[in-house]
Amino acid sequence: MSDKTALTPATHTEPPAKFSHGVRKGNILQVAGQVGFLPAVPGQPPTPAGPTLREQTLQTLANVKAILEEGGASWDDVMMMRVYLTDVDHFAEMNEIYNSYFGEQNLQAPPAARTTVYVGLPPGLLIEVDALAVLG
Amino acid sequence: MSDKTALTPATHTEPPAKFSHGVRKGNILQVAGQVGFLPAVPGQPPTPAGPTLREQTLQTLANVKAILEEGGASWDDVMMMRVYLTDVDHFAEMNEIYNSYFGEQNLQAPPAARTTVYVGLPPGLLIEVDALAVLG
Amino acid sequence: MSDKTALTPATHTEPPAKFSHGVRKGNILQVAGQVGFLPAVPGQPPTPAGPTLREQTLQTLANVKAILEEGGASWDDVMMMRVYLTDVDHFAEMNEIYNSYFGEQNLQAPPAARTTVYVGLPPGLLIEVDALAVLG
Repeated sequence: MSDKTALTPATHTEPPAKFSHGVRKGNILQVAGQVGFLPAVPGQPPTPAGPTLREQTLQTLANVKAILEEGGASWDDVMMMRVYLTDVDHFAEMNEIYNSYFGEQNLQAPPAARTTVYVGLPPGLLIEVDALAVLG
Repeated sequence: MSDKTALTPATHTEPPAKFSHGVRKGNILQVAGQVGFLPAVPGQPPTPAGPTLREQTLQTLANVKAILEEGGASWDDVMMMRVYLTDVDHFAEMNEIYNSYFGEQNLQAPPAARTTVYVGLPPGLLIEVDALAVLG
Repeated sequence: MSDKTALTPATHTEPPAKFSHGVRKGNILQVAGQVGFLPAVPGQPPTPAGPTLREQTLQTLANVKAILEEGGASWDDVMMMRVYLTDVDHFAEMNEIYNSYFGEQNLQAPPAARTTVYVGLPPGLLIEVDALAVLG
């Protein structure tokens, strides 16, 4: 039996509910929905990196990456990115930020597949992203 | 070639369309989106467990669990839970119900990752959940 | 280490952003969110198959299938279909089209699990679908 391991990077708080920020079992790694919260500060509530789509997108991607790395994975292992936006008008700007970010990540493998849909999110949050990775 | 098996618990009707309530192939098990319908009664249309978020959440989780068990899996094998709510204001209550439920499930492994987003659902339904599990 | 391969069928343009239409790594194949765009014509912007749910659903499923086949998979390998609609009132018609389509696909294995939720999509698009497949 493969071990199922919870992934809790130092930048993240202990999860506030009975879920894990990420889990790895065998060669499968699943990252939970991440938002643009800054690295956790003990005793303080989660705080978004800023009000803008750019700030939140970059922080969200950094949070996904921290969980991947905690599980021994990298962007190259990611098969699927699910991007949840709140506003169709944010699509072009998110794509620009996304492309620029991944352009700097020195990917060795093809980029992940992606689905983007428009949903409701808690007030103040403009983007949520989760990811499925296959290692090895 | 691994066999792909449809998972249809006794509590569920035959699927009303060409999809499966769950499928397992090799060590991967995918549970279709479940809602808070009570166990099927022949000749009667699907009926939600009740109008409240609590009733529907508990029934939804029971429905997910039935499919996992039909495929030889348990909550400990679940990597990802996708929770679809219709109202951001339901998040805190759903978390409380979720935590309480999983607190009683005697988990041996870390809990699954999770993404919660807010979408439209058919009238009367307040929550939908699907799950990805890796066995073994 | 398994190779991660980008899947770009001849019917598809090069992805407009740093994502892949589909990726395969080992026996896992992920199809990115597909919409009802007609096969790509060089120099022309993506064009939906038509304004109706029927036209877009059939084209979307054809686009998913093209990516599966590019990766050496078929509908029989699909574990999960995620269907995003924009309007709850489209559910019955989508189901009818979906059933009719898969009734003609000569499936040898049980159909995939499925989740359908109602979200926002870019103007003019009525459906988006992604898929996870396990080969072998």
